[in-house]
Amino acid sequence: MMSSTASTDIPQALPTADAIDLRKKYVSPSLSLHYSEYKPLHIVKGDGLFLIDDAGTHYLDCINNVALVGHSHPRLVQVLRQQLANPSFRVSPDGTLLPDDRLLEDYMAKIFRTVPEADFDVILFLRSGSEANDLALSIAKAVTESTQVLVLDGAYHGHSQATMCLSTYKMNQATTDSTYKIEADAVIVPKPDIFRGQYKDPKTAGQLYADDVKAQMESVLSQGKGIAAFISEPFLGTAGQVPLPPGYLQTVYKYVREAGGLCIADEVQTGFARSGVKFWLHQTHRAIPDILVLGKPMANGHPISAVMTKSELVKKFTDKHGPHILNEFISDSLSLALANTVMDIISDEKLQENALSMGNYVLERLKILKDKYSCIGDVRGIGLFIGIEIIKEVDNVKVADGVMAELLVKKALLEHNVLLREDGVDHNVIKIKPPITFSKDNAETLINAIDRSLHSLTSS
Amino acid sequence: MMSSTASTDIPQALPTADAIDLRKKYVSPSLSLHYSEYKPLHIVKGDGLFLIDDAGTHYLDCINNVALVGHSHPRLVQVLRQQLANPSFRVSPDGTLLPDDRLLEDYMAKIFRTVPEADFDVILFLRSGSEANDLALSIAKAVTESTQVLVLDGAYHGHSQATMCLSTYKMNQATTDSTYKIEADAVIVPKPDIFRGQYKDPKTAGQLYADDVKAQMESVLSQGKGIAAFISEPFLGTAGQVPLPPGYLQTVYKYVREAGGLCIADEVQTGFARSGVKFWLHQTHRAIPDILVLGKPMANGHPISAVMTKSELVKKFTDKHGPHILNEFISDSLSLALANTVMDIISDEKLQENALSMGNYVLERLKILKDKYSCIGDVRGIGLFIGIEIIKEVDNVKVADGVMAELLVKKALLEHNVLLREDGVDHNVIKIKPPITFSKDNAETLINAIDRSLHSLTSS
Repeated sequence: MMSSTASTDIPQALPTADAIDLRKKYVSPSLSLHYSEYKPLHIVKGDGLFLIDDAGTHYLDCINNVALVGHSHPRLVQVLRQQLANPSFRVSPDGTLLPDDRLLEDYMAKIFRTVPEADFDVILFLRSGSEANDLALSIAKAVTESTQVLVLDGAYHGHSQATMCLSTYKMNQATTDSTYKIEADAVIVPKPDIFRGQYKDPKTAGQLYADDVKAQMESVLSQGKGIAAFISEPFLGTAGQVPLPPGYLQTVYKYVREAGGLCIADEVQTGFARSGVKFWLHQTHRAIPDILVLGKPMANGHPISAVMTKSELVKKFTDKHGPHILNEFISDSLSLALANTVMDIISDEKLQENALSMGNYVLERLKILKDKYSCIGDVRGIGLFIGIEIIKEVDNVKVADGVMAELLVKKALLEHNVLLREDGVDHNVIKIKPPITFSKDNAETLINAIDRSLHSLTSS
Repeated sequence: MMSSTASTDIPQALPTADAIDLRKKYVSPSLSLHYSEYKPLHIVKGDGLFLIDDAGTHYLDCINNVALVGHSHPRLVQVLRQQLANPSFRVSPDGTLLPDDRLLEDYMAKIFRTVPEADFDVILFLRSGSEANDLALSIAKAVTESTQVLVLDGAYHGHSQATMCLSTYKMNQATTDSTYKIEADAVIVPKPDIFRGQYKDPKTAGQLYADDVKAQMESVLSQGKGIAAFISEPFLGTAGQVPLPPGYLQTVYKYVREAGGLCIADEVQTGFARSGVKFWLHQTHRAIPDILVLGKPMANGHPISAVMTKSELVKKFTDKHGPHILNEFISDSLSLALANTVMDIISDEKLQENALSMGNYVLERLKILKDKYSCIGDVRGIGLFIGIEIIKEVDNVKVADGVMAELLVKKALLEHNVLLREDGVDHNVIKIKPPITFSKDNAETLINAIDRSLHSLTSS
């Protein structure tokens, strides 16, 4: 992993200190800089699973799920070149004027093949997962003529005001803010965590957590308020790589619909074959949302996102709001060309199958490490969406160990050039969500880095 | 204008009927299609001021302000090609990992040269004007620890929930919606329109409209609520191409600051040299906002937008919300490369000067038409941001004539291949905001189309 490329392959860059100063001066402090306490990375190039810094060092990227098919996939670069050579190329989109129909036609054929025709027949394009979740919630509120949104404790659904105000992951950290708070319309329901939550038996937890949601809905309804939506990821990401217990999503969706609400699946992180088992992770739950939210992995990071839903819901929404919305979003040929090619790459390179087999392999190896290191409290995941919960025992009680998680991340970077991050509300869950082109060699590097880092950290 | 290019230059496209069907089936009805009642345009190519349909017909584009420097500017295509050939090209952005510093450094030098150093020292990148306005409002609410936002009647500031709920232009049309309404935090102040509003004398209207804002703020404050922000365009766009009266913005900003609020200038439509007089239109008012919002013209339509403000405000915001926001937005090399080149084109082609001289020329010619046609009630604008208000007299009172405006737009398209649109709350204002590469030939075509169309419409 310590390989260097010839120096001529490394693009010129500012000295790292200058680059950090530039950023601090003009764009900080709103942007966090990963690893900045010990090694701010000065990445100048990407190549598949690797990010490469200005010294030519290759880092195995286990965290950038947005780069779904790997950094700088040659077919994506190629399709961009073709677009530029296309006589119809325009930088500016004009969605009101009917262009780009062949790219659109291609994409419609590909994306609607991934969902049941009866459940999804319309797609609305946006630019980020935040925008897409924001629109999904707008649609739900308009269609149901209700305001209350059920959201899981610890969730993160975006940075727009409406989505941020539903994101307890974010808001619980913003304790000093008296105005920008979880909105009155949010109904926070328990995170259905079978490792650390109230209900731990996987056989019964799904029903019990769903019953809690039902009870909270009944309380809302008894106050004369209506349920607009239940929104969740089908496998929680930022909240700490937490799987939903069996039956939970199916039962909650049933209860929510009985209460008049719509069900929104935020698949910004989990979609596009990452689960391995199905193209969309919610499909592994046999629960079908009314609105499916797609994020930037859609075009490997290029800014295009989407909402898929039923045309009857969009019609109700549009009847209320008029059609003057989102006009500029359809006809960007670069975005559609990239999105098309991402679908082709997933299919041609059998990346769903790869996510499944590589995910299973990593999980199997991590479970062996769990038996070896008592600080690994839990290993969980599906496909290449994996979490390692780091814990310690205090008075015979297992508690989150964010300090150890941070040390592991640091050691993996400094000694093994492997990029990991801690996540979750207690910052004690190591997230693993690499590009789904992740190989067995990459898996060996990852496991070796974790094993050797933990060995060193626990034997000292 | 009826020129056709050789058929080999026209990209293949679906038959128009199929393209419309495709769109209706999968992406309507959330997207409106301009001119669809009489001539849905099947644009397959853009070239400078012209959009070209599948039959090779060239249309003079007088409405797509987003394509600031014209469609498919060769330098923008060229810079994209260079980016693809750059060894550091990555499709996916990783803002947490410090890349793209040379492009960022270049852009910082260029963009901060357009504003006083003492007033703006930080920039936050986003993907759309909606996202940028949404963030600007979040910052204002957090910094002021207040919730009330003053917004002009008839304004439009975006499609996210938080911005849509402030946009009376949009919401007043959504009369059937009981839930998705102007939010309780919005304080709607009068549109300071000296043509159709309460105060018509330009000498006194600025102060009188500002006094109205002050009175409404005092009412808010007397209820124990705080003022978070005043948000407006410095020349109203969607509200009907309405200029702010002299002194208005300066006085309102003063009052708002005295009341503890921040001032937000939404320059999504008006920025980047379009006014001709100054690079930012607010600068013509000698009023400096606390937060300046930049839209997609920034990269000629490629999705990048921004908020510029003072670092002390961002610091206060970040102290409350933590830095985990907007991470993916900084390092997209395509966006930064395009944004840099747009700045170069504006400078090298002297487009600010062009916007001023062409804008003055069009205004002068339109004022002659105003004397010729009684249905032109008002002609107004600055640089290439122009409006023609179409009216009729009913019982000696001048009222909006949306029907005539629509007929003019239709005739200009069908008989002269000139793209215009009606706008404003009564749909009776013809908006003219073409790419700022607009030439004198283009101006002749535009004036001729309006003159001949109105002649035909008023003599029949």
